[in-house]
Amino acid sequence: MQVTTTWRQHVRPAVDALEPYVWEMSSDEVAARYGVPADQVIRFDTNTSPFLPVNLSDTLAALAAQMPLNEYPDTSYGELVRAIVDYTGFPAEQVVVGCGADEVLDMIAKVFLDEGKRAVVTSPSYGMYVVLTETYGATPIAVPDRAGFERDLEAIAAAAADADLAWLCNPNNPTANLIPLDGLTWLIERVSCPIVVDEAYFEFSGVTAAELIARRPQVIVVRTLSKAFSLAGLRVGYALAAPDVAAMVNRVRPPNSVGTLSVALGAAAVRDLATMRERVRMILAEKPRFVEALRPHVAEIHPSATNFFCFRAHNSAAAVESLLKAGIVVRDVSSKLGLANCLRPTVRLPKENDRFVAALAGGS
Amino acid sequence: MQVTTTWRQHVRPAVDALEPYVWEMSSDEVAARYGVPADQVIRFDTNTSPFLPVNLSDTLAALAAQMPLNEYPDTSYGELVRAIVDYTGFPAEQVVVGCGADEVLDMIAKVFLDEGKRAVVTSPSYGMYVVLTETYGATPIAVPDRAGFERDLEAIAAAAADADLAWLCNPNNPTANLIPLDGLTWLIERVSCPIVVDEAYFEFSGVTAAELIARRPQVIVVRTLSKAFSLAGLRVGYALAAPDVAAMVNRVRPPNSVGTLSVALGAAAVRDLATMRERVRMILAEKPRFVEALRPHVAEIHPSATNFFCFRAHNSAAAVESLLKAGIVVRDVSSKLGLANCLRPTVRLPKENDRFVAALAGGS
Repeated sequence: MQVTTTWRQHVRPAVDALEPYVWEMSSDEVAARYGVPADQVIRFDTNTSPFLPVNLSDTLAALAAQMPLNEYPDTSYGELVRAIVDYTGFPAEQVVVGCGADEVLDMIAKVFLDEGKRAVVTSPSYGMYVVLTETYGATPIAVPDRAGFERDLEAIAAAAADADLAWLCNPNNPTANLIPLDGLTWLIERVSCPIVVDEAYFEFSGVTAAELIARRPQVIVVRTLSKAFSLAGLRVGYALAAPDVAAMVNRVRPPNSVGTLSVALGAAAVRDLATMRERVRMILAEKPRFVEALRPHVAEIHPSATNFFCFRAHNSAAAVESLLKAGIVVRDVSSKLGLANCLRPTVRLPKENDRFVAALAGGS
Repeated sequence: MQVTTTWRQHVRPAVDALEPYVWEMSSDEVAARYGVPADQVIRFDTNTSPFLPVNLSDTLAALAAQMPLNEYPDTSYGELVRAIVDYTGFPAEQVVVGCGADEVLDMIAKVFLDEGKRAVVTSPSYGMYVVLTETYGATPIAVPDRAGFERDLEAIAAAAADADLAWLCNPNNPTANLIPLDGLTWLIERVSCPIVVDEAYFEFSGVTAAELIARRPQVIVVRTLSKAFSLAGLRVGYALAAPDVAAMVNRVRPPNSVGTLSVALGAAAVRDLATMRERVRMILAEKPRFVEALRPHVAEIHPSATNFFCFRAHNSAAAVESLLKAGIVVRDVSSKLGLANCLRPTVRLPKENDRFVAALAGGS
């Protein structure tokens, strides 16, 4: 007796309804498709740091001699958590570490979202909020930005009154718009449901909702080492939350998702704040130069509170193609609400930014 | 106007009902509590490899010079997937890579489990199956083992007829029992719902359900680099599945959960099968020596098809304490069904296993 296989009928409807994931082109694919040497491909599409982690060779060589990679990481990530405690001033019981901010966002969604629930997202914003909301079967409630990419705080507060979670990216990806602290405070005082303030770019903006957690325990601040700390390749993110909220998120945290090398190199990066701050300063100083060099070749450049910015090209599809032919990858955000013809480059090293401008100027 | 905060009412009932996670003691905690130097603590509780990854220093030093850790990993993990394709003989579209087998299991649960669904678990087995089932709001249906830890294949098939997923660990953790290929084939022909065959210890047992996937697309084989491949600290696992099933699991796969170093070192490990196989041979050759040395000091030792085994101590609590005082951590499985007074040691290096026996003999 062999029974018929029927795996498909057991798939959750919410997952069955998801769009299949479309991968970003890898640098190897860009190289192959556009005939550029792979080591000449420059990624302006991921808002990472153009700097390698400092002392990487020394640190890795020292680690290599002694690191028990054959054993699991300590499930409490002690060394890394201690570094984050010292950096943020929050005690360990208010810190939840994950495999990149993406896993932290997933854990929060897992705690709060389910069929029949609603989650507020501003539009446009980081695409993962809608993906996670829909993956867990909940409904995204989109709140469009106002003119100039300003978030509509009153509309967010109104939508959140009837929601189970609010996702707020500050500074916002992809617009680079920042809600200043007074606006953030105003909003958070009016929202009763859990509100995630994704501060992936906090080190560039200097504005944080962390200080509001003490009296507003529904605030969950999410941060990453993938941007200002130069460690995108090692996948480390963390949340700051009220003790009870952190304990709840910890219930769904996998015990070992941050590897041993990520714990060690992540802790070393967070301990070296001088390097991080100097690099942030260099990127923020380079940004106006990059913007002004680019301005003659584009239709409009929007203000930015972080290490990337959004500009409107004369023809975004042609611009993307010109850039790719030069081995330059930019994030195409032109299909998002209010962003027709817009592209979103990261601010990188001056010579890399010059290549970006030259490639765009040549093709525009 | 400041509204009341009510985050708690938005927590999913399934998550609110979860037991808070109890962390394993880290090696530092064992050292502190039992007065053993931290570098003298030996972990017999995680079924990892006692061997460091081969050529780690050289590989890491070479990587350190060139690896762009400031950038995200390629989301398709090309180099690692190619190595797994060559190792398993499955094409890339049938391979799903994750951050350890635990993330792969989580992705599968996310696809198939939800409130009102049912998942078959054998009992005793790997605890994560029940945790994941309950996290997603589904109900675990436990099928107890028969005498001698033999899995009750008829009962599993009967329970699966009314379930949405079946979790099957083969060889089983913690009993080390193996369902041979004919039993596995018999079972899989009778199960119509998705069935996860967790082969974390495949390289030790030599038995796989992978060859059944072609005609039974509901079979999902899950494997890891954390055991035979010596890479627990780098968090790499993968699934082998029918193309449509793999595509469905990929819909909920996060784009970047396996870091750059894990991709590179994971690929290197899977390319070096000679080292892996020699180490597996050494562990399997050491196992009977360890078992016979231990036998006079314990009540009963159960047969094992892998790199760990289960034994019944005269008094498991006293044995755990004696071992910890010597800096030796063993997995206490005595609270699991049918495992009263049982402990589960990993087979490690001969001199480490000798320390295990001596500590237990001294304290028993």
